[in-house]
Amino acid sequence: MKIDLHTHILPRDWPDLDAKYGYSGFVRLDHYKPCSARMMIGDRVFREITDNVWDPKRRIEDCDRDGVSMQVLSTVPVMFSYWAKPADALELSRRLNDHIAEVVRDHPKRFAGLGTIPMQDPDLAAGELERCVRELGLRGAEIGTHVDANQHSGRIDTLNLDNASLQPVWSAAQELDAAIFVHPWDMLGKERMPKYWLPWLVGMPAETCLAICSMIFGGVFERFPKLRIAFAHGGGAFPFTIGRIERAFHVRPDLVATENNTNPREYLAHDSTPARFYVDSLVHDADALTLLLKLFGPQRIAFGSDYPFPLGETTPGQLIESIKLFANEKRSLLSETAREFLRL
Amino acid sequence: MKIDLHTHILPRDWPDLDAKYGYSGFVRLDHYKPCSARMMIGDRVFREITDNVWDPKRRIEDCDRDGVSMQVLSTVPVMFSYWAKPADALELSRRLNDHIAEVVRDHPKRFAGLGTIPMQDPDLAAGELERCVRELGLRGAEIGTHVDANQHSGRIDTLNLDNASLQPVWSAAQELDAAIFVHPWDMLGKERMPKYWLPWLVGMPAETCLAICSMIFGGVFERFPKLRIAFAHGGGAFPFTIGRIERAFHVRPDLVATENNTNPREYLAHDSTPARFYVDSLVHDADALTLLLKLFGPQRIAFGSDYPFPLGETTPGQLIESIKLFANEKRSLLSETAREFLRL
Repeated sequence: MKIDLHTHILPRDWPDLDAKYGYSGFVRLDHYKPCSARMMIGDRVFREITDNVWDPKRRIEDCDRDGVSMQVLSTVPVMFSYWAKPADALELSRRLNDHIAEVVRDHPKRFAGLGTIPMQDPDLAAGELERCVRELGLRGAEIGTHVDANQHSGRIDTLNLDNASLQPVWSAAQELDAAIFVHPWDMLGKERMPKYWLPWLVGMPAETCLAICSMIFGGVFERFPKLRIAFAHGGGAFPFTIGRIERAFHVRPDLVATENNTNPREYLAHDSTPARFYVDSLVHDADALTLLLKLFGPQRIAFGSDYPFPLGETTPGQLIESIKLFANEKRSLLSETAREFLRL
Repeated sequence: MKIDLHTHILPRDWPDLDAKYGYSGFVRLDHYKPCSARMMIGDRVFREITDNVWDPKRRIEDCDRDGVSMQVLSTVPVMFSYWAKPADALELSRRLNDHIAEVVRDHPKRFAGLGTIPMQDPDLAAGELERCVRELGLRGAEIGTHVDANQHSGRIDTLNLDNASLQPVWSAAQELDAAIFVHPWDMLGKERMPKYWLPWLVGMPAETCLAICSMIFGGVFERFPKLRIAFAHGGGAFPFTIGRIERAFHVRPDLVATENNTNPREYLAHDSTPARFYVDSLVHDADALTLLLKLFGPQRIAFGSDYPFPLGETTPGQLIESIKLFANEKRSLLSETAREFLRL
């Protein structure tokens, strides 16, 4: 049994959103040749994709080839649209969530789903999370590592995940027993990274570490002890820098422990009940996964492949298969952790 | 024998540089009570420091207590002043370097030195590097992870370390057989990190990873194969994310391998001759150091403590002493790697 927590899906078609909403910046799909499309933002090609992004049959064929039992579907982070007008982002989210729910309904043994919610308006986001869980049967939501500044809401600051205004989302997630998967997007320092795809290589791990630190030091896990959160890409830079982070907590509590005086390392406890947070396994390196296992234990790490994108695993699950594990550890990594996280 | 590659020093006194140069932003020391001072930028307290920052005798006492044979002295990164007028930054650099050289001359068995060079003007920087090595007997220089945009030079972009304009520095370092120690500063995304000291915890490891990736993918190590570079804090986020970085190199060479088609993992080879790059040991976690050892090997990792700052090791060398090592590995980590890196 292999449950892939980290996969992305899009509908094959949606309306021209720039035209519909009257301002630009939304993604559209240009099906310029068979089985392929370009994700476009204005005239710019954001990414070339193939039909396994939108075609459930192609996905199931790939899963069968790779021995993946179930994919957890979430949107592509560029679709979050936290920068857009809240009502428009809500409408787009509903469209994407309805699509994911439909794919899951058509293939309930092969797919589970996480919705997207308009975090620029936490009350709307909480409402859509409730609809996702109660009406659509999704397991929770995928959210970004922060919420963009939003000209359409008149908000000029970018919000980290410790921002008090986001509490309606955490509160709803806890009440709904919904899983929240945090994926990096809109990477910090990207203006410093014009070459070599560095926003993806340096920016994403930093974003994820920033999100984890913000939630820990902002006391979010303390205020919402039943929240179930997982972070993509093995937690980004966090696992390797926990020593530095903990050291700072000890030596400069005046700077670090201003809102929560729990040692950040406590959030790594293997056996804490309730679980504090989860990470996926997508670190592309056996030694890094070994470090991750030592820190979090197999019950806090869920197999994730970033299917079907190239920075994901070629053969989903291969990294976990490549390292020496007891059978029960492997079972946790490949399916049981995801099952617990998602309440499957 | 323990050689601490990563320690910071300042002179006890220097003139009011804002007044001297006629514009603000320089650091001054306010000796407001015995054995303590405040580093001030304008009216803002940047950091409280104690006399072990400037007093060689106090440093030697601490070294004797901790069993440290030799400290490698470099300035505090906030002193780089890459934002200042080049001539002023050169003058300040010369002052700081003359001071370090004097401390080394007074205690040649206890201290070695790395200068600071005005990277905003690579020719001036190369010249000062030459003076540091040829006239002052320093082992090389400490530089930042990037060079700030500089209003005084009319340059609006921040330069990463792959920028072609920096080649005079690499060329000089290679010709002089000088060591270059890269320390994060002026952290990317700091506007996203208003709380919890996150520029130090998330920003610094990201900065260092950005610097390593820039030098690798920009082909700097290829063009200057005899360059000896070490990166602070165990290479920041790089060691844990090398899998992701290598994966990107394989799957999107069109984005990643635009200027260098060497696999980034090759720069980790334990036994490459010449050595590609070094890191210090300052990761504050035994499992992280173990991963670092697996990746780089003991001959590419040099003991560094960040003495005398609180985010450093309380007892310099303790982390290395805490892990199981063969005697020759321990010797490499504690002294031989630094000795080779610095040509001591």
